[in-house]
Amino acid sequence: MEPIILVEVFALFLLAKLAGEVFERLRQPPVIGELLVGVIIANTFIFDLLHLKENMEYFELLAELGVMVLLFTVGLETRLSDLSTVGRVATQVAVLGVVVPFGLGAACMLFLGEATEVALFIGAAMVATSVGITARVLADLRVTGAIESRVILGAAVIDDVLGMMVLTVVSGMAGAEHSLVDTAVVISIAVAFVLATMYLGGRIVRRLAGDGHRKVDGVRIPVAGKDRLGALRQRNAPFVVALVICFGLSAVAQYMGLAAIIGAFVAGMAFAEVREKHALREKMDPVNDLLVPFFFVHIGLMVNLGAFWPVLGLALVITVLAVVGKVVGCGLGALSLGRRGATTVGIGMMPRGEVGIIVAMVGLSLNTIPDEMFSVVVFMSIVTTLLAPPLLVWSIRRGGATGPAVTGRT
Amino acid sequence: MEPIILVEVFALFLLAKLAGEVFERLRQPPVIGELLVGVIIANTFIFDLLHLKENMEYFELLAELGVMVLLFTVGLETRLSDLSTVGRVATQVAVLGVVVPFGLGAACMLFLGEATEVALFIGAAMVATSVGITARVLADLRVTGAIESRVILGAAVIDDVLGMMVLTVVSGMAGAEHSLVDTAVVISIAVAFVLATMYLGGRIVRRLAGDGHRKVDGVRIPVAGKDRLGALRQRNAPFVVALVICFGLSAVAQYMGLAAIIGAFVAGMAFAEVREKHALREKMDPVNDLLVPFFFVHIGLMVNLGAFWPVLGLALVITVLAVVGKVVGCGLGALSLGRRGATTVGIGMMPRGEVGIIVAMVGLSLNTIPDEMFSVVVFMSIVTTLLAPPLLVWSIRRGGATGPAVTGRT
Repeated sequence: MEPIILVEVFALFLLAKLAGEVFERLRQPPVIGELLVGVIIANTFIFDLLHLKENMEYFELLAELGVMVLLFTVGLETRLSDLSTVGRVATQVAVLGVVVPFGLGAACMLFLGEATEVALFIGAAMVATSVGITARVLADLRVTGAIESRVILGAAVIDDVLGMMVLTVVSGMAGAEHSLVDTAVVISIAVAFVLATMYLGGRIVRRLAGDGHRKVDGVRIPVAGKDRLGALRQRNAPFVVALVICFGLSAVAQYMGLAAIIGAFVAGMAFAEVREKHALREKMDPVNDLLVPFFFVHIGLMVNLGAFWPVLGLALVITVLAVVGKVVGCGLGALSLGRRGATTVGIGMMPRGEVGIIVAMVGLSLNTIPDEMFSVVVFMSIVTTLLAPPLLVWSIRRGGATGPAVTGRT
Repeated sequence: MEPIILVEVFALFLLAKLAGEVFERLRQPPVIGELLVGVIIANTFIFDLLHLKENMEYFELLAELGVMVLLFTVGLETRLSDLSTVGRVATQVAVLGVVVPFGLGAACMLFLGEATEVALFIGAAMVATSVGITARVLADLRVTGAIESRVILGAAVIDDVLGMMVLTVVSGMAGAEHSLVDTAVVISIAVAFVLATMYLGGRIVRRLAGDGHRKVDGVRIPVAGKDRLGALRQRNAPFVVALVICFGLSAVAQYMGLAAIIGAFVAGMAFAEVREKHALREKMDPVNDLLVPFFFVHIGLMVNLGAFWPVLGLALVITVLAVVGKVVGCGLGALSLGRRGATTVGIGMMPRGEVGIIVAMVGLSLNTIPDEMFSVVVFMSIVTTLLAPPLLVWSIRRGGATGPAVTGRT
């Protein structure tokens, strides 16, 4: 290993964290700062100065590990048991918020004469939702208790699962040989894998952790069994087991022709039910703090501004469709909250953040979408994420969060 | 990045953790299990099966990051302010425990006709102490309150600092051009760097964290200042700053011709004074759990058993000298505790664990020591670590922990 690599690790990590800090202070998502650091490095003399070209593969590994732990952590927040309680409005919001942007994005690309796979990947990237920044704005405005807020946060959970299913289908299609039967087989296996790990994974993990249920006269009562995860001797054993499963399912997903992150996400979902019991979030956070910046900087490094300017027009079109798709799609799903409430929900679901980029990244690594399309998605993700907070503030101030309880800061 | 790499990450991590679990259950240090996994993989068909040869460089990076966070964490346990309180006996134990094994190891290698640098590195590897396993045996036997136990744990802290200084000098010599003046300059700069960061680093970090002191009539009274680390906006900001400094000082140390881990260690020491305030240990633990196994497996991967058998005789000699060196050296330092107490201290200081291997690893990466010498040090480290617990139990049972308070399990 060249000595320069440690300098590169230090420089990328330092710059990412500095940019994150600046964006936090501007009340913007730090992720965008990290992305921009990558874009700036890639398109200036700093890239050559750090000899990054020669050592890019090392950062590919760190970035890959970073996005795996990130998606595992997102999965950890996604409980199947929550999905049944978020209610009908949230489900409508999530489903329409997936269908409309996907349709708009894919139709636009087909209309422009792009290949089917490219159209599907761009559609899939427009499906993603990253409500982290929305949640923060809602907390700042002290409206987390409003019905609109709860619908947004509930729909975001379903959206994650639906988005992952869309990515499974799309990447399965891209990975398969092009016969229709092959594609159908690949997709069926992939979807079965994802559904099975989602459904069985959580049950197995709960059983291993001793959080069982027993039916007595048709009523489920909790039974405290032996906590086999906690009974392991090594330090932080449940966390270690979670990492093993995360790496294992990622490798399996990859060998099925899917994105590794799909495996990481379903692994996270499997452990969602025991996340408090074994303090998994608290243990994942430092690992995320260390590795995730390498992912976002690496994404930024792949944005070639020279190749981007010619597609700026397309990027603007896609961005408008991304905004319209979510505001109209999610808004329609939430019409029962009134027009102003529905607008709030639509705007709240708008930011694509990291999730859209991750989908485009998968397309890039499967050689399905070209470099400049990747840059288009990064642009769309950044702009939708930056636009959401001011629009959300405007919508809520005009009475778009009129739900029952308006509670204090949570 | 090849898809196989995720499989390798999964396989190495899983096997390391399984071996760690087995060794925990055998009441042996898990580190040895992780090392043996590496040795077994490297010397069987599994190496080819996993295509590790082609992708070794990726694991070099993970291993390097692993040993950096490990040494940072060791540094975090090493407080300059503790050093002044461990007392005269512990200081004697540490100093003699450094001088005698170093002398024996270096003399033996010179006697066998090895080059000076090789002799110095082997000596430096024999200086190391890793009292983790000792601390656990003491806790199991409920003698952590005995004077012998406190001397061991105190001496181990000083030993870490002295060992790092020895490594600084030795690796400075290996890195320098061979003129005497050059060497003297390199070593002086290196030692000055280490001493300055040890001394100033802690003060700067304390000041940044708002834990200041003021002298009033010659008496130091604590002054609570502004916690600039805690005032940063990003999540886990003090932990993030600690990582930045860890990477930064590692890169600096490397560019001075020293081992990167020396920088990581002094960075850890700088943050030792605020480790409770910002829960740095709790945040480093998951990062260690993830990365450190890659270091030990990687070490094991570099042990070529075919090349090792011819030097088995030498390995046994070095191991005997390593045992004798610590038992006699540390024992002499602790003679005031009586012969049985001194024996307990000597045995307790015997395990080299990971630290000896890390030193040899530095020698290997500086191209100073040959492969088979590296295997010799790994053998010595494993054997001294495995021998210590039974010998310690024997020594304490025969009355070698007769100090004042014999407290309960801590």
